Amino acid sequence: MQARTPEESKTILTDLVLPSETNPLNNLFGGELLARMDRAASIAARRHSRRIVVTASVNHVAFNKAVPLGSVVTVEAKVSRAFKSSMEIYIDVWVEDRESGKRSKANEAIYTFVAVDETGTPVNIPPLQPETELEKQRYDAALRRKQLSLVLAGKMKPADATELKALFVN
Amino acid sequence: MQARTPEESKTILTDLVLPSETNPLNNLFGGELLARMDRAASIAARRHSRRIVVTASVNHVAFNKAVPLGSVVTVEAKVSRAFKSSMEIYIDVWVEDRESGKRSKANEAIYTFVAVDETGTPVNIPPLQPETELEKQRYDAALRRKQLSLVLAGKMKPADATELKALFVN
Amino acid sequence: MQARTPEESKTILTDLVLPSETNPLNNLFGGELLARMDRAASIAARRHSRRIVVTASVNHVAFNKAVPLGSVVTVEAKVSRAFKSSMEIYIDVWVEDRESGKRSKANEAIYTFVAVDETGTPVNIPPLQPETELEKQRYDAALRRKQLSLVLAGKMKPADATELKALFVN
Amino acid sequence: MQARTPEESKTILTDLVLPSETNPLNNLFGGELLARMDRAASIAARRHSRRIVVTASVNHVAFNKAVPLGSVVTVEAKVSRAFKSSMEIYIDVWVEDRESGKRSKANEAIYTFVAVDETGTPVNIPPLQPETELEKQRYDAALRRKQLSLVLAGKMKPADATELKALFVN
Amino acid sequence: MQARTPEESKTILTDLVLPSETNPLNNLFGGELLARMDRAASIAARRHSRRIVVTASVNHVAFNKAVPLGSVVTVEAKVSRAFKSSMEIYIDVWVEDRESGKRSKANEAIYTFVAVDETGTPVNIPPLQPETELEKQRYDAALRRKQLSLVLAGKMKPADATELKALFVN
Amino acid sequence: MQARTPEESKTILTDLVLPSETNPLNNLFGGELLARMDRAASIAARRHSRRIVVTASVNHVAFNKAVPLGSVVTVEAKVSRAFKSSMEIYIDVWVEDRESGKRSKANEAIYTFVAVDETGTPVNIPPLQPETELEKQRYDAALRRKQLSLVLAGKMKPADATELKALFVN
Repeated sequence: MQARTPEESKTILTDLVLPSETNPLNNLFGGELLARMDRAASIAARRHSRRIVVTASVNHVAFNKAVPLGSVVTVEAKVSRAFKSSMEIYIDVWVEDRESGKRSKANEAIYTFVAVDETGTPVNIPPLQPETELEKQRYDAALRRKQLSLVLAGKMKPADATELKALFVN
Repeated sequence: MQARTPEESKTILTDLVLPSETNPLNNLFGGELLARMDRAASIAARRHSRRIVVTASVNHVAFNKAVPLGSVVTVEAKVSRAFKSSMEIYIDVWVEDRESGKRSKANEAIYTFVAVDETGTPVNIPPLQPETELEKQRYDAALRRKQLSLVLAGKMKPADATELKALFVN
Repeated sequence: MQARTPEESKTILTDLVLPSETNPLNNLFGGELLARMDRAASIAARRHSRRIVVTASVNHVAFNKAVPLGSVVTVEAKVSRAFKSSMEIYIDVWVEDRESGKRSKANEAIYTFVAVDETGTPVNIPPLQPETELEKQRYDAALRRKQLSLVLAGKMKPADATELKALFVN
Repeated sequence: MQARTPEESKTILTDLVLPSETNPLNNLFGGELLARMDRAASIAARRHSRRIVVTASVNHVAFNKAVPLGSVVTVEAKVSRAFKSSMEIYIDVWVEDRESGKRSKANEAIYTFVAVDETGTPVNIPPLQPETELEKQRYDAALRRKQLSLVLAGKMKPADATELKALFVN
Repeated sequence: MQARTPEESKTILTDLVLPSETNPLNNLFGGELLARMDRAASIAARRHSRRIVVTASVNHVAFNKAVPLGSVVTVEAKVSRAFKSSMEIYIDVWVEDRESGKRSKANEAIYTFVAVDETGTPVNIPPLQPETELEKQRYDAALRRKQLSLVLAGKMKPADATELKALFVN
Repeated sequence: MQARTPEESKTILTDLVLPSETNPLNNLFGGELLARMDRAASIAARRHSRRIVVTASVNHVAFNKAVPLGSVVTVEAKVSRAFKSSMEIYIDVWVEDRESGKRSKANEAIYTFVAVDETGTPVNIPPLQPETELEKQRYDAALRRKQLSLVLAGKMKPADATELKALFVN
C-alpha cells in the first residue's frame, strides 16, 4: 500500500462550547472534550485508512487550560504514525479569544485507532510518510509511546523497550 | 476599521452523521444540517467582526444530495461580504466517500449575521477584502442578494434594485 | 388524487426554549429554530402526502425577533401549495409572554419538501385546495417563489418567469 | 381572579419519534414520553396561571400502546381543574398512521403542577371553568383523584375522602 | 423458575444535574427525572427477568423536593414484586449536599414493567423473594397497588379489591 | 483533615447504551465512554473532597472490549490516592449479558481531578486510607503513575523518579 502524508488525514472540527457541556465553573467538561477529540481523531484515522475504525486507546491527556462557555474551540487531528493495522492520532486543541482573535493552545492528546472490516477484524493499513519537522518528531516519539504502552500492559519486557529504556538509563 | 480577508474568517467543522440525526431513509435531517451550518457560520461571522453575532437571515438553501448515516460531513464557512453591521456568510458542504476518499459537494448555503454589543445593539464591523476569483464573484453577487432580500421584504422598490433588475430587463 | 385542504396538514409544535439551545445573549440559536421548523414542516408535508418526505429547500428566512431562554414557542406549519411531487410548507412562529398571555409573531419561513417512496424516488401527491383568504394568498405567491427558485438555480430563463418578471417590469 | 377555560390552556406538541428515543424493540422509551408530556403539561399550566410552574406529581400512567420509531406523536395537554395554587393537567397522546392518516389514542396521563413566584413560594391561581362534557367529567374526577392522592400520602383519613369512599362502599 | 432477591436486581444510577436539564428556577425538570428513573427501573427489571422489558405504567409520583443544578442525584431501583410477566419496580432518589456529604431523600416512585420476547409478547418471569423488612413491606403493598390500578382501569370491581377495600371500610 | 476511605467516594453509574451513542459497528463510541467515566469520576472526586472538582488528566485508557448497542454498562469510580489538592480516580467498567446475567470487565481507566474553590484555585483535600488489598495496590501504583506523568511532562528528571526507574534498571 502506498504511504500517505499526515496532511491527507488532517481533520478540523471547530465548534462552540454550549451551556449543556459546561461544569459548575462554566468551563467545558473534560469528558465533553474527550468525546469531541475522539470524533475528530476517528475521522482522521478513517481518512488515512479508508476503513471503519474503532478507538483502541487514549494516551495520557492533561487538561492544562480551562475552556469557558461560549468559546470557539478548534480540534485538529492528524495521523502521527501508522503501524500494521493501528494508527496513532495526534490532536491539538486551540481556544480563541473573541476580541483579539488570538488562538492559544488548550490541549494536546494522543489516541490510537484500529482499522477493521465489517466483522470487526483488524486489517492492514498504508504507512505514514511524515513531512514537516513537527510531524517527524511526533512520528519518532510514537514508537516510544507504543513501547511504553506495551510495557504497561505487560506485553513487552521493560528490557526490550529499547527506545524507552534510553530515557532512564545511561 | 481595517479590512479582513475571507481566509481570516474561514471556519471548518468536520463531523460524523450520528444515528440521532437521521430521517426514515437514514439520511441526515435537513434541519440538522441547517443547525450545523448556523454554528459554523456564526463562528466565521465572529472571527470577522470579533463581536457577539446573531443570525439575521438564511438565504434560499437547496438540499440536492442526501447525506447518509455514518458520513463524514465538512461544513466550510467564510464571510463573503461585510456591510455596515451585517455580514453575508457563504457555506460549502462536502461529503466524502470512505473507500475512495473523494469529496463531493453536497450543499451550498448563505446566511446573514449581525454583529451586536452586549445589549443586542448592532455595531460597525470591518469591510471585507476578497482575494480569490471565487471570493470576488461571491462578493459581487452578495449585493444582488441583499437587494432581492430588501425587495422581498418590501423595504426597497424593485425599480431601485438596479443590480437585480438587470437580470430581468434588458 | 383528491385534493386536501391546508387545515388537514396543519401541525403545531409548542415547546420551551431550553438552556442548551441558546446563544451568548440567552436567546434561541437561529440554527435550533431552523431545525424545529424543519421537523414541524416535515410532519405537515407527510400529513398532506401520506408518504415519506425529505427537505428539498428552505426559502429565505428572516430572524426579526429574538426568542429568549424559557420562552414558549409555537411553530405552526401548513402546506401552502402542492406541485407534482413537491410541496411548499408555510411556517408561522409565535412567542408568548408569560404574564400577559399575549402571542406575538416571531418568524415566518417557507420550506419545500418532496414526497418519495422507500427507494427515495419522487412520487405524485394530491393537489391542495386553499380555503381561507390567507391560504389563497400564500397559494398564489407560491408560484412566484417557485419561479424565482428556478431562475436562481439557472433552470428557468428570467424571461419565462412571467409571474416574477411582472414585479420588475412596467 | 377571573376563571379561564380549558381551551385557553390547550397545548399541542406534535413531533417525530427519533432513533435516539427508542428501546430495543424500536419503540419510544416510556421515559421519553413522560418527559415530553411533562413539557407540554408545564406549558398548559403556565398558560392557565401565567406564572412559573413546577411539576408536583404524576398520576398513574399506563402505556397501553407501543409508539414505533418514525411515528408522529401528538401530545395535547389542558388544565382539567385548578385548586388554590395547584392545577391538574390532563394529557392525551395520539399516534397517527402515515398511510391512512388515522389517529389512534396511545396514552392518557395526569400531571399536577404548582404555580410559584421567583422564590419558589406557591401563589394563587385563577379557577377553571370547564365547558365541554368531557371537560366537566374530568373536572369532577379531579377531586376524587386529589382525595386519593392525599389518602395515599397519609394527609387525609380515608373516612374523610367522601368522593373516593363512595367507590368502595355502598 | 427460581426466585430472585431484590438485591439481585438493584440498579444504581448516580449522575450530575446538567444545565440542559433544568427549569427556570434552575432545578431539575420533573420530566428529566421521570426519564432517568425509567432507565434505571428498566435495567432492574431486565436484571430480574433477563428479558427485553417495556414500561407498562408509572404509579403516582410526587416531586416533594427540588433538585438544583449541579446536584449529584442517585437513582436506586429494585424489583419490589414480580407477577406473571410484569414486575413492580420501587425507585428511591437521593440528592447529596456537596459540603456535608449528607444524602437526603428527594423522591420515591413506582414503575411497572413487562417482560417480552423479540416479538413483543409477554413471557413468564421468576418470582421475587424479599429479604429485608423494607423489601417485605413493599412486596405486600405491591398487591394493593395492583388492585387499585385494576380498579381504576375498570378491570376489577372495587368489591373484589379486598386488599384495597380494607383501607376504606372497617 | 481526616482521612477518608475509597468506599466513601465509590460512585456507580449504571445506564443503557442508546442508539445515538454508537459507531458504525453498533458499538458504544470510545468518546462516549470517556465522557461517562469523566462524570462518574468527577462525582467520586467530589465525594472525597467535598469541593468543586475539575478534570486534570486522563491516564492511558485501553478499549479492549466492544460494548454493543442496548448493553447495560456499569461505571464504578473510587478515589485511589489523594495528593495535596489532586486525586487519582480508578474506574472499572463492566458490561453484563442479558440472558446469563454475567458481568464481564470491559475497561479500566484512571483520571486525575483537582479540587478548587469558586475562583478555580486549588485547595487542600483529605488524605485517602485504602482498606482492601486491591485498594492498597492501586494506592501504591498511583505514586509511580504520578512520577511517570511528571517525567513525561518534563517536570521531574527521570533519575529522580525512583519508583519508576526501578522498573527499567537492575
